[in-house]
Amino acid sequence: MNTDKVKPFIVMDILERALRLEKEGSPIIHLEIGEPDFRTPQSIIDEAVESLKKGQTHYTDSRGIIELRNAIASYYSKNYGVNVSEEQVLVTMGSSPGLLLVLSAIIDSQSDEVIIGNPCYPCYPNFINFAGGIPRYVETSEEEGFQLNARIIKKVLNKRTRAVLINSPSNPSGTLIGREDMKEIAGLGVPVISDEIYHGLVYDDKPHSILEFTDNAFVLNGFSKLFAMTGWRLGYIIAPKEFVRKIHVLLQNFFISPNSFVQRAAVTALNEEHPEVEEMKKRYDARRRFLLEKMPELGIKIPVEPKGAFYLFINMSHINKDSYNLAIDILEKEGVAMTPGIDFGSRGEGFLRLSYANSIENISEAVRRLKNYIEAKETLQKPS
Amino acid sequence: MNTDKVKPFIVMDILERALRLEKEGSPIIHLEIGEPDFRTPQSIIDEAVESLKKGQTHYTDSRGIIELRNAIASYYSKNYGVNVSEEQVLVTMGSSPGLLLVLSAIIDSQSDEVIIGNPCYPCYPNFINFAGGIPRYVETSEEEGFQLNARIIKKVLNKRTRAVLINSPSNPSGTLIGREDMKEIAGLGVPVISDEIYHGLVYDDKPHSILEFTDNAFVLNGFSKLFAMTGWRLGYIIAPKEFVRKIHVLLQNFFISPNSFVQRAAVTALNEEHPEVEEMKKRYDARRRFLLEKMPELGIKIPVEPKGAFYLFINMSHINKDSYNLAIDILEKEGVAMTPGIDFGSRGEGFLRLSYANSIENISEAVRRLKNYIEAKETLQKPS
Repeated sequence: MNTDKVKPFIVMDILERALRLEKEGSPIIHLEIGEPDFRTPQSIIDEAVESLKKGQTHYTDSRGIIELRNAIASYYSKNYGVNVSEEQVLVTMGSSPGLLLVLSAIIDSQSDEVIIGNPCYPCYPNFINFAGGIPRYVETSEEEGFQLNARIIKKVLNKRTRAVLINSPSNPSGTLIGREDMKEIAGLGVPVISDEIYHGLVYDDKPHSILEFTDNAFVLNGFSKLFAMTGWRLGYIIAPKEFVRKIHVLLQNFFISPNSFVQRAAVTALNEEHPEVEEMKKRYDARRRFLLEKMPELGIKIPVEPKGAFYLFINMSHINKDSYNLAIDILEKEGVAMTPGIDFGSRGEGFLRLSYANSIENISEAVRRLKNYIEAKETLQKPS
Repeated sequence: MNTDKVKPFIVMDILERALRLEKEGSPIIHLEIGEPDFRTPQSIIDEAVESLKKGQTHYTDSRGIIELRNAIASYYSKNYGVNVSEEQVLVTMGSSPGLLLVLSAIIDSQSDEVIIGNPCYPCYPNFINFAGGIPRYVETSEEEGFQLNARIIKKVLNKRTRAVLINSPSNPSGTLIGREDMKEIAGLGVPVISDEIYHGLVYDDKPHSILEFTDNAFVLNGFSKLFAMTGWRLGYIIAPKEFVRKIHVLLQNFFISPNSFVQRAAVTALNEEHPEVEEMKKRYDARRRFLLEKMPELGIKIPVEPKGAFYLFINMSHINKDSYNLAIDILEKEGVAMTPGIDFGSRGEGFLRLSYANSIENISEAVRRLKNYIEAKETLQKPS
């Protein structure tokens, strides 16, 4: 197994150092973590409690309970006007295992390539390597919001390409792929794996599902981000019909079935209205707007507005081209933890990812500290 | 990825046909399912409810919360008198993903072999294939309870052997590996992967952990069987210290973390006494004794007494050498669902696996039906 190619996340170094500094008494502000700071909506928790009390603690269908698969199919039909059958839906323990299964199902030989953007979520190349294929990077640009498009994908498309992996809204940049761009990617004639985990968290815009443009696609989604359910570990795959059986057999073998009462709670997540979700989105958006307003004051320009997820990917190369050392230095001098851009690939070097899954008070204080840091650096760099 | 070598379970065909017959109105007795028919003990459910209400719904350490890793280490220390550190413990979403990670960590090249018994749990060869290695079968015999021992393992040991995978009590046979045999296997000088998932369910005997005999071993265990927690999806790995980092990185990437509140409940499972667990064990044992008493009346001999799990593996080759057709025929004629032995490998052909995770009333009725079936067959087979 290609385990040696599976790399640890660099951000873990930052997190560990941040925790150590905290233990020593430093007030650290965590902007490195990609996890909602909100609580799961009450009715979802209530449903899990109810299900536990009923004793729904046994294996389920390995693809997930029919009620949940129906709810997922309806959710996609309703939100994107697409035709999804419950037969295409496979419930997984998080979207990460889902991606692993999809890649395992489509990668056959060691020369098979999957196209990903650089920068991208650091697990993507790890998963492709683990599944025995080759991550084929396409360098994206800050000017295009670090997003893939058909023009740059075409340059690396070849007969060994098995799929293109897209992520809109994206981690680390928070940017979206627009309607036309997504349509063109769908039209390339290769299967598209679309990681739609941040779909619920889009502000001032509407995300598009790849299924609006092609059936030759795998959707990955889950409950962690939109419903603040990270610790519940539940996600799903929507697969082309001809791939369902293959993925189903893998699921049966490796996971037996997803958690029974978590699935019940997930049905409630999709089928009911949750005022908390609207409130969360409002607050994320307020933080986002605050940060976008403050960045220019720090001398940081963001050419493409991040409209989704809870990330800003900021160019700090004028301060320090080495993002790892920069992140460590800001953490130690100012107590603000952020993720080094290099964690997302070579094209992320010189950038920092800032997560606004934190209170506006903390974010505001972090901006103040960051300003301090930058001003001190700039004073130092000025010719005397 | 070697997904084409990952096979579906044959028992699924039986289950599907059983469900169809049930829908049509036939009263089916399910003895094909490897799942406790009991409810999770109340205090474990209560702890999960408590944790959910506290809002413990976020990611945890990817290896699992420290309280649970400590509880697992203590559980092994207390039950087997072995020295396990929490640093060796990695919590997983079921023991199946745990086995996948262990195999992925130890299999490096396509010529690497992992020794397994034939018959064995059908996922084992699937996992080894998926991880890119070669399942090296050792044929075990009914007379030795279908268990591995050092003598027969030695015949296939070679320089490509990366591990021996043992399972005591075993699925499908319910038999144990005795102290001396386990010690000899530990002494072979290759890492042992010990699937100890049925350890809690042993009657009239005491199971041994591989860790009593060697540190060069990976233990897989979980909460599904002993605590009737199948639907909760929680298991764990105890790994040699030098392998922990590698498995940890895989865990981080593929699963992020196990379910937060399920982990809290698991701490309660291990740290408290549960009268329900003792009651379950008593009832499994009563069913086991009932079946062992009845089998000779059906003309079925079981040379090695199954003392664990909830399975009997019965030789039916005198009735029909084709276990798949036999299972289908018994299901259709008598409404008793059992697992064809061929599902567990070529050496299981001619056998049926009977699970006593069902009420004594149902088991008793199943025996009556089975007797009918066998008598009818024997009458038919007699020369007229």
